[in-house]
Parts: sequence; C-alpha cells; structure tokens
Amino acid sequence: MKRKKMSELGEIGAIRRILRVLEPVIPEKPCLPIEDDVQAFDDCKLAVKIDGYSERMSRYPWERMSDWGWRAVTGPVSDLSAKGYKAIEMVYSLGVPKDEDIRRIEELVFGIREALKSYGVQFLGGDLNSSSGEIWIDVAIVGKLISTSPVPRSGAKPGDKVYTTLVNGYGKPGLLYKLYQTASWKNASPRLLRFRPSAVTSFPKIISAISVSSAIDSSDGLAKSLKLLAESSGVSIEIKKLPISNHMRAVLKKYEVGIEEATLFGGEEYEVIFTTKEPQDRVIQACNNERIKCVEIGEVLNGSGEVLYKGKKIAGIGWDHFISP
Amino acid sequence: MKRKKMSELGEIGAIRRILRVLEPVIPEKPCLPIEDDVQAFDDCKLAVKIDGYSERMSRYPWERMSDWGWRAVTGPVSDLSAKGYKAIEMVYSLGVPKDEDIRRIEELVFGIREALKSYGVQFLGGDLNSSSGEIWIDVAIVGKLISTSPVPRSGAKPGDKVYTTLVNGYGKPGLLYKLYQTASWKNASPRLLRFRPSAVTSFPKIISAISVSSAIDSSDGLAKSLKLLAESSGVSIEIKKLPISNHMRAVLKKYEVGIEEATLFGGEEYEVIFTTKEPQDRVIQACNNERIKCVEIGEVLNGSGEVLYKGKKIAGIGWDHFISP
Repeated sequence: MKRKKMSELGEIGAIRRILRVLEPVIPEKPCLPIEDDVQAFDDCKLAVKIDGYSERMSRYPWERMSDWGWRAVTGPVSDLSAKGYKAIEMVYSLGVPKDEDIRRIEELVFGIREALKSYGVQFLGGDLNSSSGEIWIDVAIVGKLISTSPVPRSGAKPGDKVYTTLVNGYGKPGLLYKLYQTASWKNASPRLLRFRPSAVTSFPKIISAISVSSAIDSSDGLAKSLKLLAESSGVSIEIKKLPISNHMRAVLKKYEVGIEEATLFGGEEYEVIFTTKEPQDRVIQACNNERIKCVEIGEVLNGSGEVLYKGKKIAGIGWDHFISP
Repeated sequence: MKRKKMSELGEIGAIRRILRVLEPVIPEKPCLPIEDDVQAFDDCKLAVKIDGYSERMSRYPWERMSDWGWRAVTGPVSDLSAKGYKAIEMVYSLGVPKDEDIRRIEELVFGIREALKSYGVQFLGGDLNSSSGEIWIDVAIVGKLISTSPVPRSGAKPGDKVYTTLVNGYGKPGLLYKLYQTASWKNASPRLLRFRPSAVTSFPKIISAISVSSAIDSSDGLAKSLKLLAESSGVSIEIKKLPISNHMRAVLKKYEVGIEEATLFGGEEYEVIFTTKEPQDRVIQACNNERIKCVEIGEVLNGSGEVLYKGKKIAGIGWDHFISP
C-alpha cells in the first residue's frame, strides 16, 4: 500500500484503491455493476443509494438550509429513478458541531421533509452525531424496482440514440456556477437563484414502456455523465444537439456565459440521460405519456469512452471531490 | 423555532426538535417505534440501520484504523441482531480530508472488510466525499427479519426477568474509558487494548425459540441501555446482579477501577439486553443452543423509567454527543 494524499489520487483513483481492498465482500454477480449509481439487492427487487453532503463542499451560498436539504434527498431519489426504482424509505445520519444553532438543523430538516413529501418517501429514522468541523449529512434511500428490470450505465450499444429528459432544464446550474466563481451571484435576481431541481420520478415507467439500454442521472453534469456512461458501456458518444431551451440561451447571453460551458459542464440538473434503439416517435410518445419532455441529443458510436461534440473529443469534466478547488 | 446551541439541548433534546419537523413523513403505523434502534419496512420483513462515526469523536487512540472500521460495522449489525434481523447488505458514505493519506483509508476499509466477512454481509457500494475537518463514516446496513417478529424496546412488562448475553463481556470498555481519562492507557498491556467486540448475530434465533418481550443492544452502556428500555416500555428495572466475570473483577481491581462504574457506565460491549417472562431454564437452554452465555441480571417492575441498583435509582448515564466532553 503506497502512501499518497487523496488530492494526488483524485476521487476515481482513491475509489479504485478502496475497492481493491473490498473485493472479497462484493457480490459476485450483482444486479448492477459495483460502480453503478445505485446498489441493488434481493434479486434486483430493491436497491439502496447512499449519498454524503458536507455543508462547506455542497451548499451554495445562495441556498437556504432547506434548499440544501431538498437537494440532499433529490440526489439519491434521482439516481434510483434513473435505474428504474421508486424511492420508498429514507434514513439519514447527521453530523453537527456542538455550537451549531438547532434552528439551522430544523431548517435543513424542513427541506428534507418537503422533498420526502413531494417524492412520496417515508422517513424511517436517523442518527445524530457531533462533528468537529461542519454539518454533514448522509442520506440513504431504499427503492423498489417498478420497471421490468434495472437499467445499468453499461448497456449502451453502437447505433443507439442518446436522449435526455427536460424537467429541470440544462444550463441554469452551469450559469450559477459561473456567477459563483466570479462572485457576481450577489447581484443576480433572487428568482434565478431560487433553483430547486426535482428528480424525474416517473422515469421507471418510461423504462417499462420502451426498451432502454443504459441510463444515468445527469447530476454530475452532462459531459461527465455522458463520459461515465460511454466508459462503462465501452462505446463513444457523439453529442449532436445541446439540450437547452431558447429561454435559457437568452439568459446565458445576458450574463455573458458560454452556452456550451453552461450546458456541458454544469451539473445539479437531476435529469435522466438514456440510450435506446427504439424509433424516435415511440420514445417521444413514451415520454409524453408520463408528461415528460425528452429530446434526442446524440448517438452511440463504436469507441472506447470518448464523448464528441462538433467533431472534437470533449473532456468529461465535472466535480471531483479531491481535485476540484 | 427557538435559537439554541446543540450543546445546550443535548442529543435527546435536539432529536425531539428534529422529529417534530419530520412528523408528517413518519409512517403512521411503523413496525418498530420511530425511536427504536433500527427502522423496519416492507411489512417488517426488512430493516435498515444507519450509524455515523467521526474519527475524533469515536476512534480511541489505541484503536488501529482497522479496529475502528470493524466497530463501525459491528454497531449496526448488533442493533439489527437485537431486534431479530440478520444483516445482509451494507453501503457506506465516507468523508475524507483532501490531505489525508490513502493508506489510512485502506486500513479503515480493511477492518470493514474483516467485519463484513465475519458477519456474512455483502458490500454493495459506497460514496466518497471530501470533508473539511476529519474522517467521517456513515454505515447503513439492511437486515432481513429471521425471527418470527421484530422485538421492540418498548415491550417489557412488570414481572418479566431481565437478561443479558455474555459474548464480549462487561467491564472491559469501562476499564478502557477510565484508563483513557487518566491517560494511563499508555502503560496498559497491548492485550488489554486489542479489544474487538463482536455483535451477537445468533440472537434472532433465541427470539424465535422463546418469547422475548423487549430487547436492546448494550453498546451505549448497561445503565443507559436499561434506562432507554425502561423509558420506552413505561416500566422500571431493578438490577440484581452485575453481569461481570470473576476474571474481569480481578483485572478491574488490579487497575483500581470500580466494578460498578466499569460495568454500568462502560459501553461498546455490543451485548444484547432482553426481557422475558419465560422460566429461567428455558431461557438458558435457548441461549445454550446458540452457544451463547446468558445471565439473569434483574427484574421488570411497575414504574416510569427508573433503573434501580442496590435499592437506589441510578443515572442512565452514557454517551451524549453534544453534552459529553
């Protein structure tokens, strides 16, 4: 075991070293690959997703505690939905500094409550701990398979078309990041900042209606999510159309933020990206039946994990917990 | 919502305020009460337990990272066992500072692996996050009901006898705490410090063999665990015999640590405390069949949450995350 700082290894390097140790206790034939977004068990009928959030790393300064709590629930619900599971039960573990004001925790928990109500998930219980640094929350949600079978990241085939849902819209979080980096968010309109994205909870029904070969939630950003999907599937993906509305294009222009940058490298959108060989009209119909807007954004090609846009490879850049500043 | 520091409220006060907010999303008729140790769902057939550990608050200086990882798994497995569930699947969420050495994380995960192997639990996956303060781990374990029905904290009835298992033995963690407080652990023998307690995983079979009215894991300490059981059940409990071996009595004497203090207020023993109205020989036989030593330590009385020893009420003292130093 070589000595190395987490920041030298990066998130993926660190995970690889950790998984090497854990190999003997990983299921031999899991329902979904170990590196997929949710962990399935009980003959795939159930899945669990755990997600950790530290206040300093994940709450944006314009987010109220309740917005942050909403998002902490939305993340795992979104991952479960993208794989075909309906979120049903939630537990959390909280780490709170001793001198923290209980009201901030109540506000956080209020946002959690709103999200659970909205997604129809029950709160089963939690664990409260003291933390020496900052507020920390881990959310674990159990989901029930409601599509015919779970959809992995790794099933995309050359010739499949790539789609994404448009519930929360792409570009807005990318814009917010940009404003954040330049501190100009302080002058942005409150309406722009009050962004509370939702998980696409009816996606499992789309999986039951049409044949979906692979799917991933887009919360790490469009570019990084497509990259993960392409790498897991052993294919490349060509983006032919950016999933961005005319309205958002206009907003980005007003704030002088690049459309491609905001759409490809944003994140926090909680849309679903999926691949299918079904004809477009059947895909659109299946989405319409669930009152979801879906758009074809590209195609799966032979390749080895590249994502192409306008004929060029693009970087699968997104958040890295140990390298990002 | 009144402004108050966590340290002013204490753990129980804070949990009460948080649960008030979450009330609308708590199941109306849960399998086990919301304040019980594990959270049951799917008609009680499954349960989940989540437990958080921060390095500064929960790793003792004599514990190797792997010992700490072992204990982080043992805690939830023990809680599930005490309620009648066999732990089957585990996920974790890790928070790690950017400048941490990956080897310490590998050592932590190595201890987790050893525990999972020992308890027959599968590792399903995890989440890796950067933390601004210290290493933080949340372990969530799903358990399958293998006794006839789950046993709550709240079912003890006056006239029941109180038993505890003796797998890890009482007193040793109490002794270690004491040595820790006086910094004399540095001179203690390594053999004393290499304490790696196990969960009593065959306890669900005892629940199937005899009628158990209430049960709780003893990891918060004998006094506090009995207090929680008595309060939840709306009874009082009289301790008639301390569950401590002659060997441990001798060790405590050698280190000049009080027997009652070490046995009542220690913790980290991961034994099961349970109540039953069955005759003693049936209880002992059921335990023997599972190769577990059980001992009758007291009796359930009419009352309102008191724990009595030698005719006096004793304090239900144990660890409080926000009040303890």
